[in-house]
Amino acid sequence: MTAKQLVLLGTTVLVSCLLLTRRSAAAEPQGRMVRIAELEIDATQLESYKAALKEEIETSLRVEPGVLTLFAVSVKGEPTHIRIFETYADTAAYRSHLETPHFKKYKAVTQEMVKSLKLIETEPIMLGTKLR
Amino acid sequence: MTAKQLVLLGTTVLVSCLLLTRRSAAAEPQGRMVRIAELEIDATQLESYKAALKEEIETSLRVEPGVLTLFAVSVKGEPTHIRIFETYADTAAYRSHLETPHFKKYKAVTQEMVKSLKLIETEPIMLGTKLR
Repeated sequence: MTAKQLVLLGTTVLVSCLLLTRRSAAAEPQGRMVRIAELEIDATQLESYKAALKEEIETSLRVEPGVLTLFAVSVKGEPTHIRIFETYADTAAYRSHLETPHFKKYKAVTQEMVKSLKLIETEPIMLGTKLR
Repeated sequence: MTAKQLVLLGTTVLVSCLLLTRRSAAAEPQGRMVRIAELEIDATQLESYKAALKEEIETSLRVEPGVLTLFAVSVKGEPTHIRIFETYADTAAYRSHLETPHFKKYKAVTQEMVKSLKLIETEPIMLGTKLR
């Protein structure tokens, strides 16, 4: 490979990387499925619940290409009130998520910890993010 | 620059880019501030409201480094019920957001469109995302 070819290669790689890291921050939804889960957790089992939830989130994002966000928060001053903002590539990705071993494990392990669960289906308006 | 130096440079750029694009998908919150806004919008002004909201989200993400996500959705079957999941780098980034011209414009333009606004402060548990 000549020096000229190397410069060309280096430039191509650099430009590709810049393009990759500059993808639009404020994306239009494009068929994505977004759901909000509102949970109340048994106070005596809150730490165990949060550990199971974190494991489920970490695994889902790592192994499922169609799981795009799982943002879990508790309401300030009401630590047993948990909300999860879930974004899937599409409804197929969501259905596939429900069948995974890690999701089924999470459901089984947390069954006795969850006092109530409300699932809110939504229509995305704009999903703007710079996080990853 | 010699061919050897060029190869070294190219490799460094490539490895840096790979590291950049492989950052952990399921991030621990690290001092982030997350807030959920629940709004009800006047049905006759819903389209105008959504246009103003989209402009505000797009601008905030583009010009404010500390605005990390603004995810806006409506509740399925209740299009005037809007929820916004907001993530800021920290409370300083949030306070700075409130003082920006684009946020002040959004507040002024939408003042008569918003029938109710409930702000829910939260404690992040895990903010897992692959979106950007």
